[in-house]
Amino acid sequence: MTHRGRNRDTGPSHARAADYAHLTNPFTPQKLFSDDRIDAIHRAALDILERLGMRVLLPEARQIYADAGAFVDEETAMVHIGRDIVAAALSSAPKSFVVRGGVPKRDVVIGPGALLFKPGSGCPNVTDLERGRRPGTIAAYEETLKLAQSFDVIHLNGASAEPQDVPVHLRHYATTKAQLLLTDKVPSIYARGTKQSWQNFAMIALARGVSIEDFVDQAWCTTVINTNSPRQIDIPMGQGLIDFAKAGQVLIITPFCLSGAMAPVTVAGAMVLQHAEALAGITLAQLARAGSPVVYGSFLSNVDMKSGAPAMGTPEHFQGTVGSGQLARYLGLPWRSGGGSAANSGDAQAANENQFALWGSILGGANVIIHAAGWLESGLSFSYEKFITDLEVLQSVAELCTPPVQDDAALAMDAIAEVQPGGHFFGAAHTMERYRGAFYAPLNADLSNFGQWSDAGSITATQRATSVWKRVLADFEAPVVRAGLAEALEDYVAHGTEAGGAPPVS
Amino acid sequence: MTHRGRNRDTGPSHARAADYAHLTNPFTPQKLFSDDRIDAIHRAALDILERLGMRVLLPEARQIYADAGAFVDEETAMVHIGRDIVAAALSSAPKSFVVRGGVPKRDVVIGPGALLFKPGSGCPNVTDLERGRRPGTIAAYEETLKLAQSFDVIHLNGASAEPQDVPVHLRHYATTKAQLLLTDKVPSIYARGTKQSWQNFAMIALARGVSIEDFVDQAWCTTVINTNSPRQIDIPMGQGLIDFAKAGQVLIITPFCLSGAMAPVTVAGAMVLQHAEALAGITLAQLARAGSPVVYGSFLSNVDMKSGAPAMGTPEHFQGTVGSGQLARYLGLPWRSGGGSAANSGDAQAANENQFALWGSILGGANVIIHAAGWLESGLSFSYEKFITDLEVLQSVAELCTPPVQDDAALAMDAIAEVQPGGHFFGAAHTMERYRGAFYAPLNADLSNFGQWSDAGSITATQRATSVWKRVLADFEAPVVRAGLAEALEDYVAHGTEAGGAPPVS
Repeated sequence: MTHRGRNRDTGPSHARAADYAHLTNPFTPQKLFSDDRIDAIHRAALDILERLGMRVLLPEARQIYADAGAFVDEETAMVHIGRDIVAAALSSAPKSFVVRGGVPKRDVVIGPGALLFKPGSGCPNVTDLERGRRPGTIAAYEETLKLAQSFDVIHLNGASAEPQDVPVHLRHYATTKAQLLLTDKVPSIYARGTKQSWQNFAMIALARGVSIEDFVDQAWCTTVINTNSPRQIDIPMGQGLIDFAKAGQVLIITPFCLSGAMAPVTVAGAMVLQHAEALAGITLAQLARAGSPVVYGSFLSNVDMKSGAPAMGTPEHFQGTVGSGQLARYLGLPWRSGGGSAANSGDAQAANENQFALWGSILGGANVIIHAAGWLESGLSFSYEKFITDLEVLQSVAELCTPPVQDDAALAMDAIAEVQPGGHFFGAAHTMERYRGAFYAPLNADLSNFGQWSDAGSITATQRATSVWKRVLADFEAPVVRAGLAEALEDYVAHGTEAGGAPPVS
Repeated sequence: MTHRGRNRDTGPSHARAADYAHLTNPFTPQKLFSDDRIDAIHRAALDILERLGMRVLLPEARQIYADAGAFVDEETAMVHIGRDIVAAALSSAPKSFVVRGGVPKRDVVIGPGALLFKPGSGCPNVTDLERGRRPGTIAAYEETLKLAQSFDVIHLNGASAEPQDVPVHLRHYATTKAQLLLTDKVPSIYARGTKQSWQNFAMIALARGVSIEDFVDQAWCTTVINTNSPRQIDIPMGQGLIDFAKAGQVLIITPFCLSGAMAPVTVAGAMVLQHAEALAGITLAQLARAGSPVVYGSFLSNVDMKSGAPAMGTPEHFQGTVGSGQLARYLGLPWRSGGGSAANSGDAQAANENQFALWGSILGGANVIIHAAGWLESGLSFSYEKFITDLEVLQSVAELCTPPVQDDAALAMDAIAEVQPGGHFFGAAHTMERYRGAFYAPLNADLSNFGQWSDAGSITATQRATSVWKRVLADFEAPVVRAGLAEALEDYVAHGTEAGGAPPVS
């Protein structure tokens, strides 16, 4: 099911060509840093890894680095990684790879030119205008999955809201099962320990109808690894790097560098730190399994220096994003960036910050854009309404990925000859043949005039978005899955639960 | 006076470098049409001018075209303009020129790389949250001038709201006097007949302290000429093209092509029509005075095909804008584009449409972006609050025009060595030296957390903007003008009024 807009009844002859499920970025990647400074940032990051090192809390991870020749101080847990080790890792990391969805339409390629959107993720709370702001629940998690599944422009599942009503040792069962039954898109999995990870992999393999042996030969899910900036990889993250690499699943390795707080106050300095940490993670993954799929991750914004609060969609966020894209291309790796807003409600600030960050990602050439829709409060809330208003922007961007029709017929010479000066084109044959599919049909925008709009109650975009998400949820039809899958997953979860589940590591 | 943000107290050592008054677009102009199709569109437009012609309602204008060798049918008022005439006109139009403000800081260059913002213009109504939506008045016009004057990122005055409480034969006295006394930026003048235009020129010359002879040797003001799409130049617009060209003042020649209504339903077809009309206007201006400053104008969006209502900030608006930029560069002329929103209030739709259109303009390489802030209802209202929330985006874009600091000190190697894993950079020497000027200080964004924001009354961005514009108006200080200017302008207006003013032509 694809929701694009209201009452679309495009005829076959001039149907819109846009395929929201498969986007290629139409824009030339931009540069805000000179090529020689990108090289200097890369070399500075190598210096940091070699000279200052990373603190790596997981002994297994330290051993892997040590086995590759890194200098490890077991007392301080500091790992000094030589540039030759990093270079070898970079040479084994794939430049492009396929991640398999539940149906071929949902397979995605993460590589040059790809433009993939992932919803706002990792939020402890959810909010909507009907029920207010509240802690995340499995019911809300499932609703937001249904919303994401209903729009082709969302390419990868996210972890919209943390289902705090499910015990932590059982939570992964609930979230993975929901993703496999309510969506056919690539699941998003948290790396919270080996046992959880492999249980998640087993459930996905069950859903996709492959053995674990076949599962580890291809990528079927993604996880985000956040380093603890500055310069630390904690136990779950180190374990996740190893587990997902060994399983051949996608590691999106993202230092979360807020300039001025966990990273230097300059954008260039934050990029140096981010680059060092990302290289450390990529290196561990490649050492754990050469050739495993990794994505260079950046989420570089700044804090408000008066309060320490995170800011989003700022000029510094934009510059850091474009600069990170330059670094990713320098490495030749796929790249993930992040959007979002620090606003507390779905107002003009929220819209503007999100879109500003989005353009930084698009113009930087990001392949995966996380938090592309629905993120408020710098990620503390997932908003149902903001998800819809942000989707309007994502769909508009998706339309730009199809070049405008520009053949001779599109030049409309006959129509221009047909319509006399002072006339209009409404009735021209050229218009009549094309008007149904001519323009993007808005999902939520209201184009009525002020009088009509006032008479109808002066409903704002965010208020209208409530009707949209409610209609989408009411109309939702789960994707068809193979017969017996729901029962098989239930069985798996029941057995796992009986065996004590899998508590997250920390 | 420059308003950038709250409580900025940047020290001299690491002050922010951004000069909002002089911006150079940092982005590579993008292409959505192939070079050969841009050439095809240009040739199609030449065919239209030659074969179908333009209806030109002003006899003086037809005579000028005829004198240059165009075929004129006086009965139908149709003018057929040969491609050689157009080519000659294009060769005399300047590729870059200076427009003089009231002080050197406000001089602007309209040419390659320039990025100039002009507020929302031409609105019959104004609206703000305190006083509601109402017809434009001279008081509102003056207030919006004060707002524009207070922010360096607004480079050119606009005609924010039509002062409907001033009789039409005296209105230009009020608006031009207000611009000359309340701002030092380049005035925006309506072309509403020869008498009005020359009275406006005389007032500007008086303010700038130059004779009329010297006035016509340089550009001191702008006007926007809208053709009556399709294919018509009416009497005031034809007269304006001649008057402003003869006076050497800036003609921004902008067909307003709403695809599906006054222009073909395809973006490419609307571009063909727009291009033909712009070329017709540019040709008339150059025939009236070779070398007079002209700007290739585009404002190409689409209508909602169900209601006929204009839509703004759509994918088609974006594509048409980028395509128009390609056409302007093909001609080698400065280029003006348009932003705006169809929304009826300052909500997420309004923010998103405006910013989406803005990025089309920036990525198309527009030199002058009109309606960059404050436009609601596709131009039927100028919103004080939206002016502020849009300004936040313009200021953020302006920040991007200064490259990030990327010298060795900015790489922050010492700070990264100083801060241990798991620590933070708040107290690092590198941070302490730079934190004051490190980040863009928001004008209106609220970065407080949800609890603080709720406790403070859950004020939205648009509501906060009310406080901002009220504070700016309360703090406003008019620019210093030469002694006696106010009295001299009063005298001029008094004499003109006594003599019957200057009714607009139609």
